[in-house]
Amino acid sequence: MSWETYKALTFDFPEVELTLDLSRLGLPGGYIDSKRTEFDKAFAAMAELEKGAIANPDENRMVGHYWLRDAELAPKPELKDAIETGVRQIKAFAEKVHSGEIQGANGPITDVLVIGIGGSALGPQFIAHALGTPSEDKARIHFFDNTDPDGMDLALNGIGDRLGNTLSLVISKSGGTAETRNGMLEAKKAYEDVGLDFARHAVAITGVDSKLDQIAAGEGWLERFEMWDWVGGRTSVLCAVGLVGAALQGIDIQGLLDGAKTMDQVTRTSSIEKNPAALLALSWYHATNGKGEKDMVILPYKDRLLLFSRYLQQLIMESLGKEFDLDGNVVNQGIAVYGNKGSTDQHAYVQQLREGVPNFFATFIEVLTDRAAPSIEVEDGVTSGDFLQGFLLGTREALAEKDRPSITITTLEVSEQSIGRLIALYERAVGYYATLTNINAYHQPGVEAGKKAAGAAIELGKGIVSTLSSRKGEQLDAPAIAAAMGKPESTELVFKIALHMAANAKAGISKIDGGTWHDAKFSIG
Amino acid sequence: MSWETYKALTFDFPEVELTLDLSRLGLPGGYIDSKRTEFDKAFAAMAELEKGAIANPDENRMVGHYWLRDAELAPKPELKDAIETGVRQIKAFAEKVHSGEIQGANGPITDVLVIGIGGSALGPQFIAHALGTPSEDKARIHFFDNTDPDGMDLALNGIGDRLGNTLSLVISKSGGTAETRNGMLEAKKAYEDVGLDFARHAVAITGVDSKLDQIAAGEGWLERFEMWDWVGGRTSVLCAVGLVGAALQGIDIQGLLDGAKTMDQVTRTSSIEKNPAALLALSWYHATNGKGEKDMVILPYKDRLLLFSRYLQQLIMESLGKEFDLDGNVVNQGIAVYGNKGSTDQHAYVQQLREGVPNFFATFIEVLTDRAAPSIEVEDGVTSGDFLQGFLLGTREALAEKDRPSITITTLEVSEQSIGRLIALYERAVGYYATLTNINAYHQPGVEAGKKAAGAAIELGKGIVSTLSSRKGEQLDAPAIAAAMGKPESTELVFKIALHMAANAKAGISKIDGGTWHDAKFSIG
Repeated sequence: MSWETYKALTFDFPEVELTLDLSRLGLPGGYIDSKRTEFDKAFAAMAELEKGAIANPDENRMVGHYWLRDAELAPKPELKDAIETGVRQIKAFAEKVHSGEIQGANGPITDVLVIGIGGSALGPQFIAHALGTPSEDKARIHFFDNTDPDGMDLALNGIGDRLGNTLSLVISKSGGTAETRNGMLEAKKAYEDVGLDFARHAVAITGVDSKLDQIAAGEGWLERFEMWDWVGGRTSVLCAVGLVGAALQGIDIQGLLDGAKTMDQVTRTSSIEKNPAALLALSWYHATNGKGEKDMVILPYKDRLLLFSRYLQQLIMESLGKEFDLDGNVVNQGIAVYGNKGSTDQHAYVQQLREGVPNFFATFIEVLTDRAAPSIEVEDGVTSGDFLQGFLLGTREALAEKDRPSITITTLEVSEQSIGRLIALYERAVGYYATLTNINAYHQPGVEAGKKAAGAAIELGKGIVSTLSSRKGEQLDAPAIAAAMGKPESTELVFKIALHMAANAKAGISKIDGGTWHDAKFSIG
Repeated sequence: MSWETYKALTFDFPEVELTLDLSRLGLPGGYIDSKRTEFDKAFAAMAELEKGAIANPDENRMVGHYWLRDAELAPKPELKDAIETGVRQIKAFAEKVHSGEIQGANGPITDVLVIGIGGSALGPQFIAHALGTPSEDKARIHFFDNTDPDGMDLALNGIGDRLGNTLSLVISKSGGTAETRNGMLEAKKAYEDVGLDFARHAVAITGVDSKLDQIAAGEGWLERFEMWDWVGGRTSVLCAVGLVGAALQGIDIQGLLDGAKTMDQVTRTSSIEKNPAALLALSWYHATNGKGEKDMVILPYKDRLLLFSRYLQQLIMESLGKEFDLDGNVVNQGIAVYGNKGSTDQHAYVQQLREGVPNFFATFIEVLTDRAAPSIEVEDGVTSGDFLQGFLLGTREALAEKDRPSITITTLEVSEQSIGRLIALYERAVGYYATLTNINAYHQPGVEAGKKAAGAAIELGKGIVSTLSSRKGEQLDAPAIAAAMGKPESTELVFKIALHMAANAKAGISKIDGGTWHDAKFSIG
């Protein structure tokens, strides 16, 4: 690539130590110009959003995650107060824990169990991994981020005998998320099994007066932190959702907020070339034809950024993957996101990226600082870090040779500020892209159907237990059970649920093999 | 879904405790029949492969990973001996470590550092996470799976002061993989920095007489295990590559091998309906139109299976993502793979899966056994595990309602046998799919270009240091450096590499800001 072309398509933002290189995207000449009118619309919509417009019309809500890091922006004084109070409360709480003023039943806090899912886990996990160092952290962070019993046992096994030195953070805006409610109850049992009082180790991060807030208040939990309706789950990492655990870990949460704020200032600029989030959204639009025609492969060449792609999966896919646009047209939008880290992923799937289905564009993330201390040479005059960069440059070239598009983001280091900046950059890019594609980035209606169907499955399960209990000693196959429940149309689900119950001796249910696998019968007693 | 349709499209394999449900794929009537001739070809090719055919023609190699778990299959007695000797050697070595007969300089072995990348890391990581339990494992496993200096520092930080109780496994067939070589040298320095002898803690897993083997022999490393040319990296987890670390961790490696062997027996059957790997390959072919038109989203509803998708990314994408077919036609094949776990991912991106771009098919993995012990109820008569299954069933329904295809694999539990089976199932499915698409699944030519280009970048870096050193005190911008090196066409790379060097004070290089970001100058002294 010629130096001139590279310079023309690379944009540097010294205030946020960021360079955005679009030179390998294959942007046609004049592309940026062609998008100015649409971006004027995006900038205007964003300005309204930041002023407190109902930018989430489907849920009739404001969208306030940008206010979290610059409370002055909040449209009402009470919101500004809530934000500033919240940050002070978090810092004060962490200070008390670190000084030992707040302790667990068995002494100083050494571990934190975060119980949450989706936005209540992915941001915290990303930050904990990116900024943690085992010997330096003030607490080890563990997660219940699912409703898998064995997974929870595994997390508790990692805590071992330190439960009395462990704080449990239960994070759910409504308190209605089943996985989180389940995790809370399982954690509670774990504490009680070793004679510990859960409430004195428990912290709620939730909406005021939510189910969870009422439980925490009623049971006298150690502390409660507020979440607000105007901050969505996937953009909540810079409120209590992410900041409490991070502060307990010893991470400088003000640095996170300041980094995000500085990036917000840059990404508020209403000139495409001067706005890295606008450039990013423009790049996505070009690469995917504005319709998700190519997948976004995230390749940070930094171990600490391993979890960035999982965080972005939710931020991008849950924001953009919408059935309808704002005018009610069926659009089936979105961009699939995946990736882990480089150079590792070169040895996993770059073979296909270079030579296989051309259904993606890559985003390389280059971190200039290799490590805290000086490096040894692994070859004459060459360090491991030189190889890391060499591999990024080499893979980018290898993809470009085969017309596989890529973006390269360069930043100086992994730090609280730079992580805050990356989060803010992508949040803003998602917002602009949503305007370009005319969708509401801030709701998630598509997750309801699965929950409803799950609820129906749970009810079926109760019915199976009830049916078999009322016919103790009898052996019934799935069709018989479903018929007895008056739900012959649910025979398949009855079968699958009964299999699961029998495998776990639920309610004493056992399976008796039949002629074929689907002739299996079930019985209690 | 009607019970009849479900039964007709669900296939049960009791010998491997596996059920494969294709009922939500939208397979047209007669589809399986329509593929019988192609599968006859696939079965025949596989039979030849297992007998020792050169099934990897581009590299003129046999493909022998199936022999690893059933040495009787190996086409030559010396291969059979090598495999059986290898397994005995691994078990004996682990026994000596666990009994304390082999110790570190500071006492019994408590930790293992695995230094490898790609197939030398992803399989080991998958198994370590799937089958490990912190309080029960015989060693904690750490990884250098990249060439990121800070990542290596992080892993060493996790080992802390236990380096003298840590074995380092260096895994590379050729010894030529730069990342692994770098990791070996960085590990060596870490041991030496605390007065420890690396060689007495080091184990090589490599080809006979490879560069690494020679180093290990010359330096007198603790032990050396063989890798063979007829086992590719992405199918090597069931040889020493995966088995040494697993055995040291306390995992029952015979269980892994036996599970894989049993699955191999079932997936050798030359009848589609009786062969889960054939059914899987057929499903992929239908879902992707045999051209990777849809991405494979892996959704195991089990925390222990979190790393399965990363393992599959390499197994599937590196195998299938080929430019040419076996007849030299340009095909750009492959299937993109991503996913983490359920129900967690429901709260990340199922919004897009349900409502957004319909560019994927899901593979649910259902594990019937919830946990080792009985479960509490989180609601009246309902456990966390009931919710986990409920969410899987609900999400599957939610996707099916919107014509988003899915496969559901059901197995009884996570165990050495079941993990061995899953690995073998997917290895075989990949092999059949490769025949269906007429590609060589067993080489990876596309990774070379990136390595070559990286090598060129490394050389440029040396030239930059040399140029600046020879002009001490002078400040040169990138064009000037590149011109001095006689490589004006490499100005961009010179600039980027110089930036990296300056950020790390490499060779005393500093950056002096210019008028614009690209006018920066560089200088030594």
